[in-house]
Amino acid sequence: MTGKEKIKRIKSLEYKKFRDESGLFVAEGEKLVNEILQSNFEIDSLFCLPDAVLYNRNIKTEIISENEMKRISFLKTPSAALIVVKKPIKKIDFKQINNSLNIVLDDIQDPGNLGTIIRLCDWFGIRNIICSNKTADCFSPKTVQATMGAICRISVFYTELNDFLNKIDKNITVYGAFLEGENIYKANLLPQGLIIMGNEGKGISPEAAKYVRQKLCIPCFSNNEIKCESLNVSAATAIVCSEFKRRGFL
Amino acid sequence: MTGKEKIKRIKSLEYKKFRDESGLFVAEGEKLVNEILQSNFEIDSLFCLPDAVLYNRNIKTEIISENEMKRISFLKTPSAALIVVKKPIKKIDFKQINNSLNIVLDDIQDPGNLGTIIRLCDWFGIRNIICSNKTADCFSPKTVQATMGAICRISVFYTELNDFLNKIDKNITVYGAFLEGENIYKANLLPQGLIIMGNEGKGISPEAAKYVRQKLCIPCFSNNEIKCESLNVSAATAIVCSEFKRRGFL
Repeated sequence: MTGKEKIKRIKSLEYKKFRDESGLFVAEGEKLVNEILQSNFEIDSLFCLPDAVLYNRNIKTEIISENEMKRISFLKTPSAALIVVKKPIKKIDFKQINNSLNIVLDDIQDPGNLGTIIRLCDWFGIRNIICSNKTADCFSPKTVQATMGAICRISVFYTELNDFLNKIDKNITVYGAFLEGENIYKANLLPQGLIIMGNEGKGISPEAAKYVRQKLCIPCFSNNEIKCESLNVSAATAIVCSEFKRRGFL
Repeated sequence: MTGKEKIKRIKSLEYKKFRDESGLFVAEGEKLVNEILQSNFEIDSLFCLPDAVLYNRNIKTEIISENEMKRISFLKTPSAALIVVKKPIKKIDFKQINNSLNIVLDDIQDPGNLGTIIRLCDWFGIRNIICSNKTADCFSPKTVQATMGAICRISVFYTELNDFLNKIDKNITVYGAFLEGENIYKANLLPQGLIIMGNEGKGISPEAAKYVRQKLCIPCFSNNEIKCESLNVSAATAIVCSEFKRRGFL
């Protein structure tokens, strides 16, 4: 392959600045690469080992050696395939948002948490995630890997939450996860709406909290003297999504 | 401080081999260190910056500089306090297990997932986690940090699952999370029992599956052609625990 320039270009995609400049991101592993090959994503280039089992190899495919793969991979144990993908350009579809259940993320910092939440949304049939501009980037290598392919199916948008929440149909219920909200197990939950999940340390910001019409909490069952402080945000999102969707079985 | 030997000793605790040999583990950050100082854990030694705000400083405390902290810390951004703690030695209390809800982990590999599950159990008042010997070590620095202090309150045991499951009261229901189980939202769930969660890639092993009396699944709500494959194991555990505990409100 693949001069030094090419390697440098791929490795630069670890950083948001270069992903934004180039409009590209990286995904690795045969399974994830195959999901991307079958998705609507546009491919920039594809690198694979001679024995990689891929859905298709197109003109953009370059067969490389294990050593070469090691030099371009972001994984501790490089896989058989690495794909460079064009970031999709999508606009928020307010009509769809107003008619479905959606997740809003207010400054989620950890790329692994974000990846897990994208994967969760895929499981629960939630199609849109709206993120504050300070939320971790969904196209960072760590997040892409943590989505296990869900990144192909979920639309993730970045915006000023204040602007976004202002534009939402006023009849749409905005839920928020708080430590002091209403017991989610007993709350009246609608099949449409927005659910705001807050930052790992600080929770939901005051600016976003203004828009919350129904505060929800997952009750703590611990009876320890030292109270456990909170749930991991991806675990909390899992429980909240499950509780909204479960109601369909009642 | 703290000769080269001391630094080497602390840094060696990144590895299970050395944690097992010394019977020690490390925790970092004022908040976590304070929780440990207030817990039943025995302290080996405590290192802190001059301005660290700690619950107590005892004879085992050594005040160090930021540069010294950098050399012993496992964190990207070192904190104001690092504590070396003796691993607790506990035996499984079968009577307690038979009378409560417990989590069984069958080869969970990721230290972050394990930490999140320990934190979850704390939230949901689940006191015991029984792990297969191949499950990630709960005293690795990554897991300890991910528990956010829950490691002080939850008993985590390592054992051969086959032996353990054999010794359990035969009247205790063993639940297992499978992709093809009964819809958990509709299932009859008891307040006591064991819930087995399987490995990230392989799920529950055939040896452990033999003991499962009730297979449960979290139904997938996605309507995509390419089906989403699974939930992250800590997200799945969150949903399962929530569903068992929610029933108390019915």
